[in-house]
Amino acid sequence: MDIIEEAIEAFSQLPGIGPKSAKRIVYSLLSSPQKGQKIESAIERLSKDISFCKICGNVTDGEVCKICADPSRENVICVVGRPLDVMSFEKTGVYRGRYHVLGGLIDPMSGVGPEDLRIRELRERVEKEGTKEVILALDSTVEGEATSSFLSSLLRGSAKISRLASGVPVGSELEYTDELTLSRALTDRMKEG
Amino acid sequence: MDIIEEAIEAFSQLPGIGPKSAKRIVYSLLSSPQKGQKIESAIERLSKDISFCKICGNVTDGEVCKICADPSRENVICVVGRPLDVMSFEKTGVYRGRYHVLGGLIDPMSGVGPEDLRIRELRERVEKEGTKEVILALDSTVEGEATSSFLSSLLRGSAKISRLASGVPVGSELEYTDELTLSRALTDRMKEG
Repeated sequence: MDIIEEAIEAFSQLPGIGPKSAKRIVYSLLSSPQKGQKIESAIERLSKDISFCKICGNVTDGEVCKICADPSRENVICVVGRPLDVMSFEKTGVYRGRYHVLGGLIDPMSGVGPEDLRIRELRERVEKEGTKEVILALDSTVEGEATSSFLSSLLRGSAKISRLASGVPVGSELEYTDELTLSRALTDRMKEG
Repeated sequence: MDIIEEAIEAFSQLPGIGPKSAKRIVYSLLSSPQKGQKIESAIERLSKDISFCKICGNVTDGEVCKICADPSRENVICVVGRPLDVMSFEKTGVYRGRYHVLGGLIDPMSGVGPEDLRIRELRERVEKEGTKEVILALDSTVEGEATSSFLSSLLRGSAKISRLASGVPVGSELEYTDELTLSRALTDRMKEG
């Protein structure tokens, strides 16, 4: 049954899907083909109609994304690693500025250097748009920290630079918070009132 | 970004995939379109080339599946609920008989009765093929037990009928085995030596 094995293999390539889940998915598609048709046409439309915004690198169905095209957005740039992160910030409803998607993080171990990311474009944007503030909103990982430090020294003098706060996640218990997070939360403590 | 939301919705319909995993998958497809193409063509081939075996109901790329077409297979039928279960038994390498896929389990709560499953076909096969033994290999759930009991009384007299053994899973600790399983393992205990 090579066709089924190939399909399982194709689904196993997706993030978070192991061989067992892929098997369940493929067999479920065999018993309900209309689900498969939906996915086929969704993938078709993704590859045809979605591209990356010329300005910020976010996903868009035009040349320029809705956020970049919106003149009411503030002259602040939130720098993120992936298009997915833009969606996460937009869902908070708190942020009214613009974005810049790097397309990854500096990671020498995987051979990703600054020249592989949209860093030159960021620098040009900051100069051209006269950006007031650049918010570094990268993962709290070794790669994210390294990329933040790099951008921080690169953009120093061009704009005000800030980073996301580190600390205890909202709703989590201290008992289950790791020591690094706790020490960061202590160091960066906020004055009350 | 309706296209992306639609794609997330389509992937959320798959078993074991929630909205968060679907989001990750869709964004990963945006950055590596060749994965998407692979899945598209896999789904295409599944719907075009895979159908159900006329004899046993298992998935096949012909009229009759390889197992039914193999004359060296023993004259024993292992009755399972879904095509996926055939794959699981085949992987054990222990079983050399044939299969019959019911296409589900009797489940009055969901409106699935015996007439909705391939039970008539099983009965006809047992008579026609002069089956020596029918092994009931259905889920160890309420629906599986009900279906086994139904088949057991239906086929009584036509063939020898057996069921999968219930008991403690291999490699698991007694401490983490539920009481029902333990009591079944005690009742069905095997004589040593």
